[in-house]
Amino acid sequence: MIFQQFFDPDSSTFTYLLGCEVTRQAVLIDTVEHDIDRYLAALAQQDLHLVYTLETHVHADHVTAADALRRRVGSKSVVHRDAGAMCGDLLVTDGIHVQVGSLDIEVRYTPGHTNGCVSYLVGDRIFTGDALLIGGCGRTDFQQGNAGQLYDSIHKQIFSLPDETLIYPGHDYNGNIVSTVGQEKRENKRLGGEKSRQEFVEIMANLKLAYPKHIDVALPANQACGNIAVKQSA
Amino acid sequence: MIFQQFFDPDSSTFTYLLGCEVTRQAVLIDTVEHDIDRYLAALAQQDLHLVYTLETHVHADHVTAADALRRRVGSKSVVHRDAGAMCGDLLVTDGIHVQVGSLDIEVRYTPGHTNGCVSYLVGDRIFTGDALLIGGCGRTDFQQGNAGQLYDSIHKQIFSLPDETLIYPGHDYNGNIVSTVGQEKRENKRLGGEKSRQEFVEIMANLKLAYPKHIDVALPANQACGNIAVKQSA
Repeated sequence: MIFQQFFDPDSSTFTYLLGCEVTRQAVLIDTVEHDIDRYLAALAQQDLHLVYTLETHVHADHVTAADALRRRVGSKSVVHRDAGAMCGDLLVTDGIHVQVGSLDIEVRYTPGHTNGCVSYLVGDRIFTGDALLIGGCGRTDFQQGNAGQLYDSIHKQIFSLPDETLIYPGHDYNGNIVSTVGQEKRENKRLGGEKSRQEFVEIMANLKLAYPKHIDVALPANQACGNIAVKQSA
Repeated sequence: MIFQQFFDPDSSTFTYLLGCEVTRQAVLIDTVEHDIDRYLAALAQQDLHLVYTLETHVHADHVTAADALRRRVGSKSVVHRDAGAMCGDLLVTDGIHVQVGSLDIEVRYTPGHTNGCVSYLVGDRIFTGDALLIGGCGRTDFQQGNAGQLYDSIHKQIFSLPDETLIYPGHDYNGNIVSTVGQEKRENKRLGGEKSRQEFVEIMANLKLAYPKHIDVALPANQACGNIAVKQSA
């Protein structure tokens, strides 16, 4: 599998490029609108054809490049059915396997940060979006967030995987790149060391986080797959 | 490709089984609820695992087996995003390629009979549902039907294919099994011989059809993927 990880310093977002070596088809997970030229250059350099942009959820902190890429290279936008983004071209649910050439992308429903969150499992790598971060997790105080639900999602859909499974999160604010299921089960500050559901819910209820600075722009734009016209009129 | 065509005499519905010879994964197109045992026997006999039930649209004349099969064998339901069946597990739009093992199923949006109709193109075979029938087409006088739109769908998405493409329809009331694009372009009573859009719209406006006998039961049931409980309370 062709694999590349991008970092957007503005929003500390990770974007992932996955490609099939045989068919030269590729997908991008969690794109950022203003990084589109980086993606197009990477695709061209490796002679890859972009089939899908996959969202782990409707983001509140940056605008997706899904619509811009759809218009530029004809890619299709993939998002969870219940994420509130009916602009998506392919709406998925738990247990769906999205096949792209030799890539097999298993959709695992991991709500709690938002009610439309999914993680994507590809071989021994899971792309967790904002459900599980390295040493932490996504906040649960807006967009239908629910700490108890997030705890259940992480335990059922991520911590149930083999310890050596690689975790690629949607963001990192501390210079980390990748983790593993084993490492997060041991060391995650909010979940590690077998913390109980109640302990987790209490931790999440006492984070005292500021209102997200880009949410009022990013949410309506991303509900339209990043379409500029909709974003500007929203 | 493994291929099998079923006929349901009650509703004159065709159901299609398509299987991958390598992975033994299979899909069913347009199932009928009371024929579920026939499908399960065919799958078992050929050692096939049912991954998807695909709908060409939300049917008005029979109840789909999608939900029953989902509960029996864990298959996922595939339907167009705008068909009004949010019970679907995978909601598709025009141009999506659903890959199942070596099967590549191209979604072609063909509205007009209903606003959520698709045809599925697999190699040199197209499964047209009620958009295009052998010698005829689906009615356009309910479920957001639109004769002009159906004419455009058929010309753009079906008649643009090579003449030798096999047409497998959703129904036949006259003992036909299969047709070709070339045959329908020449001989279809409503569209053949290069009939104009206006001629077609006039033909469809003057069919004087009776109210469909099963629509009041079938529609609400199929909007719930054939779920019995929803059907009974509807």
